[in-house]
Amino acid sequence: MNQEQLTTTIIMLLDSERALTVNWGDGHQSLFHYVWLRDNCPCPQSRHASGQRLVETAAIPLDIRPHSLHVDESGAIAVVWANDGHASRYEPAWLRAHCYAPAEQARRRQRPLLWEATLMDRGLPRGNYSEIASDNGALREWLALVKSHGFAILHGVPTESGMVTEVVALFGYVRETNYGRLFDVKSVADPINLAYTGLALGAHTDNPYRDPVPTLQLLHCLTSSAEGGDSTLVDGFGLADFLRQEEPESFRLLSTLPVRFRFRSDDTDLSAEFPLIQLDTQGEVAGVRFNNRSAAPFAFAPDLIEPYYRAYQRFARLLDDQRFQVRFKLAPGDLFIVDNTRVLHGRTGFASAGERHLQGCYADRDGLYSRLAVLSRQLTA
Amino acid sequence: MNQEQLTTTIIMLLDSERALTVNWGDGHQSLFHYVWLRDNCPCPQSRHASGQRLVETAAIPLDIRPHSLHVDESGAIAVVWANDGHASRYEPAWLRAHCYAPAEQARRRQRPLLWEATLMDRGLPRGNYSEIASDNGALREWLALVKSHGFAILHGVPTESGMVTEVVALFGYVRETNYGRLFDVKSVADPINLAYTGLALGAHTDNPYRDPVPTLQLLHCLTSSAEGGDSTLVDGFGLADFLRQEEPESFRLLSTLPVRFRFRSDDTDLSAEFPLIQLDTQGEVAGVRFNNRSAAPFAFAPDLIEPYYRAYQRFARLLDDQRFQVRFKLAPGDLFIVDNTRVLHGRTGFASAGERHLQGCYADRDGLYSRLAVLSRQLTA
Repeated sequence: MNQEQLTTTIIMLLDSERALTVNWGDGHQSLFHYVWLRDNCPCPQSRHASGQRLVETAAIPLDIRPHSLHVDESGAIAVVWANDGHASRYEPAWLRAHCYAPAEQARRRQRPLLWEATLMDRGLPRGNYSEIASDNGALREWLALVKSHGFAILHGVPTESGMVTEVVALFGYVRETNYGRLFDVKSVADPINLAYTGLALGAHTDNPYRDPVPTLQLLHCLTSSAEGGDSTLVDGFGLADFLRQEEPESFRLLSTLPVRFRFRSDDTDLSAEFPLIQLDTQGEVAGVRFNNRSAAPFAFAPDLIEPYYRAYQRFARLLDDQRFQVRFKLAPGDLFIVDNTRVLHGRTGFASAGERHLQGCYADRDGLYSRLAVLSRQLTA
Repeated sequence: MNQEQLTTTIIMLLDSERALTVNWGDGHQSLFHYVWLRDNCPCPQSRHASGQRLVETAAIPLDIRPHSLHVDESGAIAVVWANDGHASRYEPAWLRAHCYAPAEQARRRQRPLLWEATLMDRGLPRGNYSEIASDNGALREWLALVKSHGFAILHGVPTESGMVTEVVALFGYVRETNYGRLFDVKSVADPINLAYTGLALGAHTDNPYRDPVPTLQLLHCLTSSAEGGDSTLVDGFGLADFLRQEEPESFRLLSTLPVRFRFRSDDTDLSAEFPLIQLDTQGEVAGVRFNNRSAAPFAFAPDLIEPYYRAYQRFARLLDDQRFQVRFKLAPGDLFIVDNTRVLHGRTGFASAGERHLQGCYADRDGLYSRLAVLSRQLTA
């Protein structure tokens, strides 16, 4: 028996008052509470063919116990429940994959791959449009890069207006906003937004004043003859981790005090309030939101104003620090996609001589991750 | 001078090392730090015409001080900064509106209007399609009801396919998903989702397995001749507050332990992990996510499994408790909209005799709130 088989082979069952202890072939021990087992019974009366639960979780007695329990000839656990005689059967591989021992949970958790400027030496995540549009394997690879790095570049996208939404159609859906289904980024007279000037833009996330924020942004280069206008990217998760280690007090302020962001034009009035660094309930960095241009006046208790400015300035200066920045120049036909909740993007200023024309659009991660998961299922089947 | 004028009249300035103290006509005292004042200078070099900040916040000296400072003849505060001679001028009404004394912040904060079953006696929030489609005042009122209550009903929506997206076009944008731009909710053979059966559905939020979750859902009734199929709504914020008071330990578990939700079909594989009750960084309830059908097996430390089931069951039973439920039956031409991060919706089962056909779509709150703010600006201008 190999190691893989040992991890899903049940050696012994210990039946206690409220839970079942399972000893596995590799020495690991799992605890499965009876209420959890009944709740997750996979039989057709308990789960619809769509995978959705039919069991009324609220109706399971918390002190539910098995009438009988054994490992059957196939190696699965067979239970008959004492309260209503319902029979359940649990595959060992499924049980092991759902073991909630803290060490097993930690092992299964996928951490993002953090990066800084050195990623430029190792090679930026890239793909080619004609390949990902025609080959599911290539598409899966490119989508996996977006997921692991929080961004990726795509070459060879036809320099036709609207192609950026065609790229989105490969994996998901455009998020339409007041900026349209797609928007043009170039210098214009009387811009409603500083993006539509030749000014340099420090690294930022887009639309921090919007809730829900668009989780993906794509920018596609149609024309680029102007000097400058290089794209810069910073891994906000990496920067947040750096700050947490180097300056825990700054990290604490930036992750607990909410900042309001605001954008107004004649036909739009958007406002949202979030801390710059968002943590999940387990204290892990789950999102970054930063755009100095649209931050509203801070509103904290007065004794927090100065400490917060100190932390905010530190964060902004780190964003400008080249050791964290990936930099490249989009040529016509190039596109980049960023996870707008993780990776901050900016640009160097560009001259008014020559032309720089990008088209952008927003989309959401749910579609991208779903497409990646389905492709992975199909390609490994 | 009336009370309103007193609140924006500056009586005295006290100039200290790092901040300015302002005494107002109504007796209130505000503290404004110099770094904050410089950061929020409203002059055209500091703010773009779009309202976006041009000041490099990271470059403001934390010990910045005024060279001179006085209340000018119009009642505004005029400052010349010592470091670079830049001149700033602050309107008293703007300053008072941005005073960050905790009491002033609390006064400005809008709390949602919580409701339970008794709202049915007081009258449900309603509007009429022909009115909101033709009159901005009526549209503003209806959108304000959606914002304050987290839901509203609309009557008189033509019973034509696709009208639900026309309603969205009055205030925002459809969120397209794997279910399409719009979807039909009726009994079908081989449903990919339990929504497409005649089964009763307990109160839930839609798509908890999606991140970002759609923040608005609309359901439009085209046909309704089946027995049953009443709509039920529960104010998740109200329920969470009730739980926080009555059973703080259950509230703590539900607001700190993340639950994974999952949905799979042939072409879709969605997964997202959030606590059932989401809090903002100030501990206020900011979102609710609940759907027993799509909750994946819990994965907590083993000693939390039983306490969590107890809390979860309690929450699910409260959702079923009629004292929290608003109930109504959609007639053809009726539509309801819910804030899918706050209000849970469900339905009673319906008979296979007769027909019940709803069309639904998702949208997002940002557009709705923006439209409401712009209408409010225009109608009060």
